[in-house]
Amino acid sequence: MRLTKFSDYALRALVFAASTNRLATIEETADIYAISRAHLKKVVMILTHAGFLKGVRGRLGGYTLARPPEEINLGAVLRATEADFQLVECFGPGNECRISRTCRLAGIANEALAAFVSTFDRYTLADVLVRHDHFLGPAAEKQPVRGPYLPTAGEAA
Amino acid sequence: MRLTKFSDYALRALVFAASTNRLATIEETADIYAISRAHLKKVVMILTHAGFLKGVRGRLGGYTLARPPEEINLGAVLRATEADFQLVECFGPGNECRISRTCRLAGIANEALAAFVSTFDRYTLADVLVRHDHFLGPAAEKQPVRGPYLPTAGEAA
Repeated sequence: MRLTKFSDYALRALVFAASTNRLATIEETADIYAISRAHLKKVVMILTHAGFLKGVRGRLGGYTLARPPEEINLGAVLRATEADFQLVECFGPGNECRISRTCRLAGIANEALAAFVSTFDRYTLADVLVRHDHFLGPAAEKQPVRGPYLPTAGEAA
Repeated sequence: MRLTKFSDYALRALVFAASTNRLATIEETADIYAISRAHLKKVVMILTHAGFLKGVRGRLGGYTLARPPEEINLGAVLRATEADFQLVECFGPGNECRISRTCRLAGIANEALAAFVSTFDRYTLADVLVRHDHFLGPAAEKQPVRGPYLPTAGEAA
């Protein structure tokens, strides 16, 4: 289970834009995160269209937050960027599963999905600001792995 | 965001095995769900290895639950079948994200993942049994779509 790169890059573009008090550019953002410029360009376009970023055209142009960070809800970002939440076959248009009408797995999958997205709903960009100087300096080849940390089985029970 | 087909098929193979009081075969399970036999074969192998299914060899062989359905926790199944939960780049071994040490998105992603898996932890196969006759009869081309149902933004707040 993964988020799309699109969502990953969107969250990171917002974190970078929020960390600087001048316009950010696609080029520097892509360089900082070592990600594709072409891909990031599309991400910034969608985030602008969705009202999270605003662009300034021209030679000295770039993008910046369209609203204060505390008004950018992370769940709302995910809804705008994640292409689908088709966890299982019966969440998609081509569903052929014979027990779709009565199977209760779909209900559990929906409940799990709601728990997932609701977690992001509880945070805004203001909760995840990163100090601008943390983006500076030479890129390290190796970065610490930050997850996934699964709860121990039965912890919820 | 999707679960792997592997997890999807695993859950369905277990639901089918639990619904019948005789041995199930790969062939009939694959036919019933209109899924790949080769793929399902691997799924059944992993579920057997993980102690959820047990196989009986021979011409009249097949597979059946290795334990009562109420002892097969759905979160445990997901842990055994989902290859990775690499939601974002910094959850993977090749992480190059420069702000990995201080970024708080990783914490939120871990929290969301825990909420997701913990939902499955609250259910066992006994909660999702399907009456055997629901598997019978001609396959319909079109089945109802059962999700995803996302909570409305801000519902959690």
